[in-house]
Amino acid sequence: MLTCLTAGESHGPQLTAIISGLPANLPLAAADIDLDLARRQCGYGRGGRMTIERDRVEFRSGVRHGLTTGAPLTLVIANRDWENWERRMSAAAADRDTADPVTRPRPGHADLPGCLKYCQHDTRNILERASARETAIRTAVGATAKKLLAVCGIRVWSWVTGIGNIDIAPPTGRNPEDLHRRAEESPFRITDPNREAELVRLVDDVKQAGDSLGGTFQVAVTGVPAGLGSHIQHHTRLDGRLAQAMMSIQAIKGVEIGIGFAAARRRGSTVHDPIGWKPGRGFGRESNRAGGIEGGMSNGEDILLTAAMKPIPTLYQPLASVDMISKEPFAAGIERSDVCAVPAAAVVGEAAAAWEIAAALLEKFGGDHLDEIRRAVETYRADLATF
Amino acid sequence: MLTCLTAGESHGPQLTAIISGLPANLPLAAADIDLDLARRQCGYGRGGRMTIERDRVEFRSGVRHGLTTGAPLTLVIANRDWENWERRMSAAAADRDTADPVTRPRPGHADLPGCLKYCQHDTRNILERASARETAIRTAVGATAKKLLAVCGIRVWSWVTGIGNIDIAPPTGRNPEDLHRRAEESPFRITDPNREAELVRLVDDVKQAGDSLGGTFQVAVTGVPAGLGSHIQHHTRLDGRLAQAMMSIQAIKGVEIGIGFAAARRRGSTVHDPIGWKPGRGFGRESNRAGGIEGGMSNGEDILLTAAMKPIPTLYQPLASVDMISKEPFAAGIERSDVCAVPAAAVVGEAAAAWEIAAALLEKFGGDHLDEIRRAVETYRADLATF
Amino acid sequence: MLTCLTAGESHGPQLTAIISGLPANLPLAAADIDLDLARRQCGYGRGGRMTIERDRVEFRSGVRHGLTTGAPLTLVIANRDWENWERRMSAAAADRDTADPVTRPRPGHADLPGCLKYCQHDTRNILERASARETAIRTAVGATAKKLLAVCGIRVWSWVTGIGNIDIAPPTGRNPEDLHRRAEESPFRITDPNREAELVRLVDDVKQAGDSLGGTFQVAVTGVPAGLGSHIQHHTRLDGRLAQAMMSIQAIKGVEIGIGFAAARRRGSTVHDPIGWKPGRGFGRESNRAGGIEGGMSNGEDILLTAAMKPIPTLYQPLASVDMISKEPFAAGIERSDVCAVPAAAVVGEAAAAWEIAAALLEKFGGDHLDEIRRAVETYRADLATF
Amino acid sequence: MLTCLTAGESHGPQLTAIISGLPANLPLAAADIDLDLARRQCGYGRGGRMTIERDRVEFRSGVRHGLTTGAPLTLVIANRDWENWERRMSAAAADRDTADPVTRPRPGHADLPGCLKYCQHDTRNILERASARETAIRTAVGATAKKLLAVCGIRVWSWVTGIGNIDIAPPTGRNPEDLHRRAEESPFRITDPNREAELVRLVDDVKQAGDSLGGTFQVAVTGVPAGLGSHIQHHTRLDGRLAQAMMSIQAIKGVEIGIGFAAARRRGSTVHDPIGWKPGRGFGRESNRAGGIEGGMSNGEDILLTAAMKPIPTLYQPLASVDMISKEPFAAGIERSDVCAVPAAAVVGEAAAAWEIAAALLEKFGGDHLDEIRRAVETYRADLATF
Repeated sequence: MLTCLTAGESHGPQLTAIISGLPANLPLAAADIDLDLARRQCGYGRGGRMTIERDRVEFRSGVRHGLTTGAPLTLVIANRDWENWERRMSAAAADRDTADPVTRPRPGHADLPGCLKYCQHDTRNILERASARETAIRTAVGATAKKLLAVCGIRVWSWVTGIGNIDIAPPTGRNPEDLHRRAEESPFRITDPNREAELVRLVDDVKQAGDSLGGTFQVAVTGVPAGLGSHIQHHTRLDGRLAQAMMSIQAIKGVEIGIGFAAARRRGSTVHDPIGWKPGRGFGRESNRAGGIEGGMSNGEDILLTAAMKPIPTLYQPLASVDMISKEPFAAGIERSDVCAVPAAAVVGEAAAAWEIAAALLEKFGGDHLDEIRRAVETYRADLATF
Repeated sequence: MLTCLTAGESHGPQLTAIISGLPANLPLAAADIDLDLARRQCGYGRGGRMTIERDRVEFRSGVRHGLTTGAPLTLVIANRDWENWERRMSAAAADRDTADPVTRPRPGHADLPGCLKYCQHDTRNILERASARETAIRTAVGATAKKLLAVCGIRVWSWVTGIGNIDIAPPTGRNPEDLHRRAEESPFRITDPNREAELVRLVDDVKQAGDSLGGTFQVAVTGVPAGLGSHIQHHTRLDGRLAQAMMSIQAIKGVEIGIGFAAARRRGSTVHDPIGWKPGRGFGRESNRAGGIEGGMSNGEDILLTAAMKPIPTLYQPLASVDMISKEPFAAGIERSDVCAVPAAAVVGEAAAAWEIAAALLEKFGGDHLDEIRRAVETYRADLATF
Repeated sequence: MLTCLTAGESHGPQLTAIISGLPANLPLAAADIDLDLARRQCGYGRGGRMTIERDRVEFRSGVRHGLTTGAPLTLVIANRDWENWERRMSAAAADRDTADPVTRPRPGHADLPGCLKYCQHDTRNILERASARETAIRTAVGATAKKLLAVCGIRVWSWVTGIGNIDIAPPTGRNPEDLHRRAEESPFRITDPNREAELVRLVDDVKQAGDSLGGTFQVAVTGVPAGLGSHIQHHTRLDGRLAQAMMSIQAIKGVEIGIGFAAARRRGSTVHDPIGWKPGRGFGRESNRAGGIEGGMSNGEDILLTAAMKPIPTLYQPLASVDMISKEPFAAGIERSDVCAVPAAAVVGEAAAAWEIAAALLEKFGGDHLDEIRRAVETYRADLATF
Repeated sequence: MLTCLTAGESHGPQLTAIISGLPANLPLAAADIDLDLARRQCGYGRGGRMTIERDRVEFRSGVRHGLTTGAPLTLVIANRDWENWERRMSAAAADRDTADPVTRPRPGHADLPGCLKYCQHDTRNILERASARETAIRTAVGATAKKLLAVCGIRVWSWVTGIGNIDIAPPTGRNPEDLHRRAEESPFRITDPNREAELVRLVDDVKQAGDSLGGTFQVAVTGVPAGLGSHIQHHTRLDGRLAQAMMSIQAIKGVEIGIGFAAARRRGSTVHDPIGWKPGRGFGRESNRAGGIEGGMSNGEDILLTAAMKPIPTLYQPLASVDMISKEPFAAGIERSDVCAVPAAAVVGEAAAAWEIAAALLEKFGGDHLDEIRRAVETYRADLATF
């Protein structure tokens, strides 16, 4: 069973992940993962930190001579700014007086509920872990999952479909790979280069106003065979698991599968995807409004997810809050200064989806080394083609 | 730890749930649960089966003389139509020839992916479990969770916000209890009685056309103290868990928390909820666009979820499909005949949310009997008020 | 993933289990399971209840026309004495006055710790669930697992190796199947018919003295391929999981794998099993002191477990205790009257081991229907033979 | 919920653990943990590596200024010999040719089953993770759990009760703390200094003969309130969980609770512990043959575990094996050279037990920060005293 824990603070020495249950003999190089780490750091409207942190992953266990061994993988991403935070974030009790407590919780962050839950009067003890910095290691974990998926013919793609109130619908009739390729060339991760200028103006205006922007993005997973997840219990359904994965990304407030909320507005005859069959291919569909999932299982079509990201809650234009000690009102300050992180969130969304699909894949096919898994998947695909 | 498994086929003898980890001394009567079972069966536009099945729960373990004992609870809901299905659904090998296989998978259902996954050529072996009939037992499980929540001052509410392309926004300035009370009086579970006639016309028209309708509904949970769920791992975040719970309800294709997708379109200064403080109450907010969750934790405000339900996939107006044996195309037939089940889905949504909140509550507060839990919650609420 | 919950009280209407994650197309008949239920009820020295309860399982879901469908299985065993307990054990609050509370906890039972934990002053609310009656449904669950294992060439066996202070070492040079066959013919489940008379005298003497007996038994699992479980985390190790399974059977106080405690007394050169290799077979061992597990993984040899059962704690000859209400000392009374249940415990031990092995098998091989699993196991066995 | 993953190879750069779910505000210093790491490295009969590796833990997350924050803890123990292994154990594919594969599996190790399972022909890819080196990080994890337990008045102790065929029964009438204190002063971790010389001779003789020794040890947990674990499901029982914890330590082949196997040989009247009651204390026992667990729950008495460790499987005196490539027989070589590691295993046993008890404690009492947990435990203890 594929399991993972992550750890690490935003200004601590490092982020760490342990992944347990990966099959042996999977080719894995730091460069594979660093590519996604770099992709996560791109995007128009990011603040200064993205320049400081050129994230690189290091393996501290589980990979030997370029291949996984079946043993747990340890991934580490160093925080390059650590030297400036060493005493303020030190583990040693002796350093307790080196840092003034941060007693002012910021609206829209984990600050206040975290302090209440864990009885902290220094929000740094919450915000350091709740920070979206955590998505760096989640991206690394997802990049690892993608390597496994790729061996089985499964690929993960993403693109942005809206920034603030500007929608950028992907052009119709394009497959996910093509949309992704276009997004890779855009600082906004959008699929229509003609719309870039409009977004630049929006982001610049909003930055000028000291405000921030959210948006929407899509993640597609192609090559998924029918039958991942299961209808048998509500917690085994793939749609639920993918919704959990996406909604648990920092700042995500909405998730759709397939046409999502639009499905609620249409009549049934224009929603459900007719079933076809062709020799060689087997069963398939002409449309994919279901987004690749029926009855809580993949149905063989592309899995299509849309997520809504709220605007970054740290604004130059301050929000009202109350000091936790003095109970005096104040205007919430700035810890960092991105205006818009939707392109980065799309890359994190790929990672989140990749992880869930990989977990579901291993549940269905078992296997402790790459050939065993690949063989099981191929045999099953052949079975489906002739079902 | 609160865990649950459910079982049972739509036309089998019964639905069953085992709930393990409930505290002792919780007052529990079948009538408490039957009320929600009845609420799930109401709604304009339901087909004939709802008349057959007046669901009643029976306890087969875990409750003695009106109180839970800490032992696992067994809930059973008999399927009243069982006598007509006894041989077709029999467990005995000897009855194998009593039922013709159903070889024609219906678009929008689990039929095809389930048959492919489990290597079945009789979709009855899939559809019987994948059926929304399962939501009856899930409702019973959720009603049990609600009883526990109520003791701790937590209540769960719901109302419908749209049927097909007709939106019924809840009136502003009303609290969830009031909206719920209005919904209880409406066959569409809506909050504005003046809109009923419009919906009756829509449903009747669509029924006439042999088509079906989906819609949207909201679930609110009030009285939740700050600090359920946690920011520390992505799988411990309450937003992710609630998204999983809602998306795993049959036919749900979208989930929002708070203002959801609308948050993606607004600027940050109009999204995040300013923090206030009052003696006696402690910290709180004037607005609740976050829907009661920040940083993956409840923040003390009402939790607000919206879900999108696709139209029922079984239509009089048939959809193209292909026979699994002959590979001949056919027009997909009708197994049941609801036109719209959104009001029922809202009641199931209450159950799904109640279960997750109850699980998160027990994780945070522990406790093996009611007084222990109630005491822990009250002590914590007092701590929060004076934090 | 194979999961299971059980429920039910000793004098409630029924015992129930839900098993989720079984593959489809497994042939399953009630008679298969009833055989093990009957075996659990045999044995010299059992009290009156074993006559009342001729346990029979019923399927309430998950099996259709003799085959599993992949949907969750519901197993029910009715308690035949229920009519005499209906009001005393009733779920209805109205029946609260029909039963005097049992306020006298019995040493050696769950009575006292359970009442303290769950804040109960009527030990019936604890003892009914903690009773070894629960092992009936656990046996049924294990019998289901055995059916799956048998399809993959894996079989589970047991025999008794001691009653009280009389040891009955199994004859050397016999394989598990042979030892099991002998045990099946013995009312003590022993492997040497010449020792029966001695045990009869012991049990009769002890019964006369109002006392009780424990003993030891062995469970063997044959046909297990190398590689179930894993060394990668302590909780994935098969030895730990089997120890958990055995120790969690009521009254078990010790567990050994292979030669167990004897290994601690020998020198290494006489403990570890030399590795051999033969064309066609592949790797193997001449000895099996490891009991089929090395490094937390099955190594291809027979898995061999030994368990120690304490004497039944309910004695005619009473034990000192204290009333929970009056705090007056008393001599603990009798709820039931078996003198020795070691043969039954051996059958339960088979079930406990079968379940864990089946869970580990599905984790390694995945698969959603029988052919898929069988094919994966066979391919792997072929790989091992030519490794 | 308390969860943990560990990672790291014996000759890799480091061992790592992530612990998630620890409460906030727990005082934690590296020195607390290093003490147990040093205790694990002591003992007569250890080989050369113990000198190389003076283990020290470092926190990489989760502790700030001497207190936990509720965020996941990252523990790292550097392998001091790493520089000599860097290329042989490198993660880089480019280093593949720097190390000859180890193709000769050693009996009694994970080597062969691990290679078969993960399809490895270089046993280093298995043995590096399966090595007892992993117990260093498990000890660190357990030391963290002990800190939490200590705050709640729960302490963990251990001593050795036998080396090879020499039994060292602890003197009667001594409490665990006293026995532990004696053990701390002994290179064999025994409780009777008069037996040291005898053991020195044994170990020296066995070393001379190129052989190895196992033994037995006990772990006691004091101050555990009644009611940890539960009788309600077999997997929630504390006895099963502790058996899993102990049996999953490398080289453990047997586990007992209380008098264990001896209970199987006695009559019931001499096994079960009579129940008493005293004002102020509440319920208690005069004897503790149950080892502190009845019905799968702690009963308020000391928890007492015994484990059997097989002799170290790496011998100077070689064992027959077969090369995985050539299929030629060979005599299995030496990777390291301890003769006896039972004293170290006892320290690891403390850690394994501490972790399970801490997990069960948090399940029962919940709580996100230290005061909350301490308060819940104290309130419960007061309830028990007046039950």
